[in-house]
Amino acid sequence: MTAHRPLAVIILAAGQGTRMKSGLHKVLHPVAGRPMLLHLLASVGTLEPERQVVVVGAGRDQVERAVAGTGAVIAVQDRQLGTGHAVAQAHDALAGFAGDVLILYGDVPLVRPETMRAMLDRLSRGDEPRAVVLGFRPDDAAAYGRVVADGQGIIEKMVEYKDASEAERAVTLCNSGLMAVRSTDLFVLLDRIGNDNAAGEYYLPDIVMLPGGQSAVIETEAWEVAGVNSRIELAGVEAMWQARRRLDAMREGVTLIAPDTVFFSHDTVLGRDVVVEPNVVFGPGVTVSDDVTIHAFSHLEGARIESGAEIGPYARLRPGAEIGRKAKVGNFVEVKKSRLEEGAKANHLSYIGDAHVGAGANIGAGTITCNYDGFLKYRTEIGAGAFIGSNSALVAPASIGAGAIVAAGSVVTKPVEADALCLVRPEQVEKPGWAARFRETMKAKKAAAKA
Amino acid sequence: MTAHRPLAVIILAAGQGTRMKSGLHKVLHPVAGRPMLLHLLASVGTLEPERQVVVVGAGRDQVERAVAGTGAVIAVQDRQLGTGHAVAQAHDALAGFAGDVLILYGDVPLVRPETMRAMLDRLSRGDEPRAVVLGFRPDDAAAYGRVVADGQGIIEKMVEYKDASEAERAVTLCNSGLMAVRSTDLFVLLDRIGNDNAAGEYYLPDIVMLPGGQSAVIETEAWEVAGVNSRIELAGVEAMWQARRRLDAMREGVTLIAPDTVFFSHDTVLGRDVVVEPNVVFGPGVTVSDDVTIHAFSHLEGARIESGAEIGPYARLRPGAEIGRKAKVGNFVEVKKSRLEEGAKANHLSYIGDAHVGAGANIGAGTITCNYDGFLKYRTEIGAGAFIGSNSALVAPASIGAGAIVAAGSVVTKPVEADALCLVRPEQVEKPGWAARFRETMKAKKAAAKA
Amino acid sequence: MTAHRPLAVIILAAGQGTRMKSGLHKVLHPVAGRPMLLHLLASVGTLEPERQVVVVGAGRDQVERAVAGTGAVIAVQDRQLGTGHAVAQAHDALAGFAGDVLILYGDVPLVRPETMRAMLDRLSRGDEPRAVVLGFRPDDAAAYGRVVADGQGIIEKMVEYKDASEAERAVTLCNSGLMAVRSTDLFVLLDRIGNDNAAGEYYLPDIVMLPGGQSAVIETEAWEVAGVNSRIELAGVEAMWQARRRLDAMREGVTLIAPDTVFFSHDTVLGRDVVVEPNVVFGPGVTVSDDVTIHAFSHLEGARIESGAEIGPYARLRPGAEIGRKAKVGNFVEVKKSRLEEGAKANHLSYIGDAHVGAGANIGAGTITCNYDGFLKYRTEIGAGAFIGSNSALVAPASIGAGAIVAAGSVVTKPVEADALCLVRPEQVEKPGWAARFRETMKAKKAAAKA
Repeated sequence: MTAHRPLAVIILAAGQGTRMKSGLHKVLHPVAGRPMLLHLLASVGTLEPERQVVVVGAGRDQVERAVAGTGAVIAVQDRQLGTGHAVAQAHDALAGFAGDVLILYGDVPLVRPETMRAMLDRLSRGDEPRAVVLGFRPDDAAAYGRVVADGQGIIEKMVEYKDASEAERAVTLCNSGLMAVRSTDLFVLLDRIGNDNAAGEYYLPDIVMLPGGQSAVIETEAWEVAGVNSRIELAGVEAMWQARRRLDAMREGVTLIAPDTVFFSHDTVLGRDVVVEPNVVFGPGVTVSDDVTIHAFSHLEGARIESGAEIGPYARLRPGAEIGRKAKVGNFVEVKKSRLEEGAKANHLSYIGDAHVGAGANIGAGTITCNYDGFLKYRTEIGAGAFIGSNSALVAPASIGAGAIVAAGSVVTKPVEADALCLVRPEQVEKPGWAARFRETMKAKKAAAKA
Repeated sequence: MTAHRPLAVIILAAGQGTRMKSGLHKVLHPVAGRPMLLHLLASVGTLEPERQVVVVGAGRDQVERAVAGTGAVIAVQDRQLGTGHAVAQAHDALAGFAGDVLILYGDVPLVRPETMRAMLDRLSRGDEPRAVVLGFRPDDAAAYGRVVADGQGIIEKMVEYKDASEAERAVTLCNSGLMAVRSTDLFVLLDRIGNDNAAGEYYLPDIVMLPGGQSAVIETEAWEVAGVNSRIELAGVEAMWQARRRLDAMREGVTLIAPDTVFFSHDTVLGRDVVVEPNVVFGPGVTVSDDVTIHAFSHLEGARIESGAEIGPYARLRPGAEIGRKAKVGNFVEVKKSRLEEGAKANHLSYIGDAHVGAGANIGAGTITCNYDGFLKYRTEIGAGAFIGSNSALVAPASIGAGAIVAAGSVVTKPVEADALCLVRPEQVEKPGWAARFRETMKAKKAAAKA
Repeated sequence: MTAHRPLAVIILAAGQGTRMKSGLHKVLHPVAGRPMLLHLLASVGTLEPERQVVVVGAGRDQVERAVAGTGAVIAVQDRQLGTGHAVAQAHDALAGFAGDVLILYGDVPLVRPETMRAMLDRLSRGDEPRAVVLGFRPDDAAAYGRVVADGQGIIEKMVEYKDASEAERAVTLCNSGLMAVRSTDLFVLLDRIGNDNAAGEYYLPDIVMLPGGQSAVIETEAWEVAGVNSRIELAGVEAMWQARRRLDAMREGVTLIAPDTVFFSHDTVLGRDVVVEPNVVFGPGVTVSDDVTIHAFSHLEGARIESGAEIGPYARLRPGAEIGRKAKVGNFVEVKKSRLEEGAKANHLSYIGDAHVGAGANIGAGTITCNYDGFLKYRTEIGAGAFIGSNSALVAPASIGAGAIVAAGSVVTKPVEADALCLVRPEQVEKPGWAARFRETMKAKKAAAKA
């Protein structure tokens, strides 16, 4: 990408988002587990921009916190005077910058880097358009603004739907609002547009039709420029993202038995011959190696799963879970900040937190690592080949030596040495006939209560 | 609604429902967790009817039990002689009633009150139609009876599909069967219709074409009059109900990450900025306040969740669960008839039944309230700020004082006073080398068994 | 079927399956829990073929293992020289066979036995076609080969899409590739076809257009001949299978509240008035009797559920689970190789493995049968009417007598006799004020750590 001209990106995020009915800024609503705005910044990042400006109105603080560390700066649009006015607020943030400017929308999160690049490439073609507009052809063009262009993509007219003639409305190419402009032109052109319209606003697209230059349109698929103005549209964009991700996963050699029931995160990584059963949810930060099976009803986040491991059904992997080769995490088992080494097993009703479980160790049903005392968290070390009997509680800091056996139902509070048996168990007491007498008493009591 | 004329409702529920292949009466099959018939009675109830009559054939007892307490009475149609005959069976139940009569179908459950009201309003318009028919335009008109009407909705002809001419079949307006008629006209008109047709039945729609008066049609959307004659159609009506409810939820400010995987009940109440992850099932009786997150794979019924609480994944809330502000119920935790006060936490593998958990208390992984002795249920009281160690069993009636700590693995049978530590734990015994010897023995045994 | 001519089946499975990106042979990828090839062999089996030949290229060993015990034999196609060449490799395996030959494809798994039978019936009709081709009309005929036939289904021309004229491309009947041919003709015809085409391959369909005989086409629905060349197509075929199975279930009297979220296996058996809530996964080998309710998020495999039982939500039934009449298996309970007799209950957070639970017994929350010592599995016997207190561990081999009560939190290692109370419980010790002092210490420690 070294041959490209310097790039600045302006992301408009000043809309009120009223229809979201939310206390959360619209551009921070997540898609695939990541705020829409950060999707855009991640895509933009692959183009190595010199500057990134996010123009916000209300909710500035939320947005500022969200972009911290991304290199993006905030520009504020105090009054809602239209998209042209919004872009103009980035003027100071771009002081001294010379190059191309890409104008994006915080609520249009799915635009791909290759589409952004195509806009910039078009901008630097020999015919030197002063602006490149991103067009699309929606299934239902409805009230979108139309782009009338010649065979070379040179724009003859951009027109709002309400101002369009019958012939113009018949045009199927619509304006997404995304645009690329040279920095030397952008603010000059913005100064020239007016607000002589019903809303009294300055519209960014108006720079296209200003006299003294020509602009070009390039076209992309409609899904890519889908915008989010309501939670229904948010769900729609999420669904489009998921549908595409599922197809990609299958193309790469993952079996999805019921694709529509598997939900990926923006950063899920999957190996070959991974099988994902129905109803699996991937939160952020999951990496799955080859030949792993993830059974139904599993919920994974922040987890690394090594090859040949078997997960679920009903496995809950939380951040810091590392499941080694051919290890197993089964029904109703939660693993957090713990590593299970090769071939280790925790198959039933267990909580494994802040632990290291050695290779081949077997964690019995109902085992709990007691890692928290209400103030601090403590670690549990379980040696290779150890066998933890069912319903045991390992009070951390805990250490179970390699090959040791902990008898069922033990509450382990002291270290257990390698190859030892640990027993924590009172005598079994039997009271013959007690249960029969108890039943009689209770039945009488119940009968009396009813009488 | 005080200006409206008195209203009586007749709900026809006398069909055999053979295609349901069920021992349960067709109109009692639930949609969104409520029997179809009760959906109708609830909608009808908002119009404050003076009388409600359900006409049943077979399965009278089941229906009678279902409508107990609703104010509806049962009329019996002993023989299946058609819809006209069925309506006539309501004659005695409407004795002395003067006003409008609305005729509905127990297997057409989605009709909205506003549509019922529109039918009644049309009935009382100045042109005084003697009957108002509810029409609809299905995607595929198929074999539905057609309604031929003029521009004012005055019916020129109602015709069964099989008797219709080509021109009549080209009409897209179909008869739903729902009707509004004045009580003074209804039974007079029914007396005039005959059964001179292939099936020898009396058809309610025939009253429309009787000489000496005119009827009107009003139109509604097809989904609203979808009928249920098979489990496939039942699933279809459920799907339509759910689809509409999901859109409503999102419009009101709820995020549904994957709307198609969330199932609501007829009475689910949701606050603003509630986030519902994929795969959540709401049973009846759930109220969720603002800013609550419900993670994947949660199943809630009869529960109240206060603002800022966090539920799931894999949380199971059963009737009587009350989750206080910012409280947390996490992975594989079941709560029944229990209140968790503000900030209390039960995050892993626990059963909380018949309990009160004080503010900020922490319930460790694997904690069980032992609330049942096989005969009676007993309560558990856990004080504010108490800390219940993992894998503890609290034998109810149980009382853990505020700020008390119960050590991991304890079986608590006596009250624990505030700020005390409760320990129920035998000595830990270690047998060095025992595990290694055990392994040798077992390996030898296995080898011997194979040999 | 005794009147039919002897039948041999050739299943082609020699394709590379490169687009699957899998180490598993393409025809072994499962649909509805059963490898595609075994779906075909099961369907074929109902026609009682004398011989079954699977022609494989790479991955022979995998396929050979998969068909072991089915009666099918393997023929090897060493080089990929086209479908005609592949069929020819079955020559030796059919030595001495005289009758009809059906040619199927291992990656076209949904063909129904009745369709296969229809092909064979057509082959033996009086006009004696030498081959019967199975045609279909896809939604989008795309690049499929076209079949031009007369009104009697006699084929006038079969033509590859790329060689077809405009008029031929307008034909909507396409060639599925499936064919029936008499054994006396098959190899003679194959010898006559050439490989004078761009790929230099021998194409099976070419036998149709050879001079000196006529062939016929019969038609079936497109879903039935859907082929699998990628994981996306595999998911598509799975979805078609599931959609059809769900409709069948509903027709037979099963309520599926949300059909799209229920996943069946190839051999699931369901009674009448079974209700299946959303999000239920059936693995292989499940039989469900009448009037059973399966609540949401349940995962069943290898289980038998008797009438009136209640399963889930979050029930995990594994192979060998037998749930008796009106028994209950509830939230987060796993049952493996165990029988629960009539009315027994295990409602919360339990693991029941290798056990027999008597009628009416109550298994408390958090109960674990400790059935494994790291080497062998042992059985647990729980008598009728026994009551197992919560959080108990039953160390197998274990025996709890009828009517016995095990106190909460017990670790039971010795047999408990009928009607006795079993207590395994140390003294409860209380340290007044300890918790308050602990909190002070920890707060000071945390403060110090921060300072």
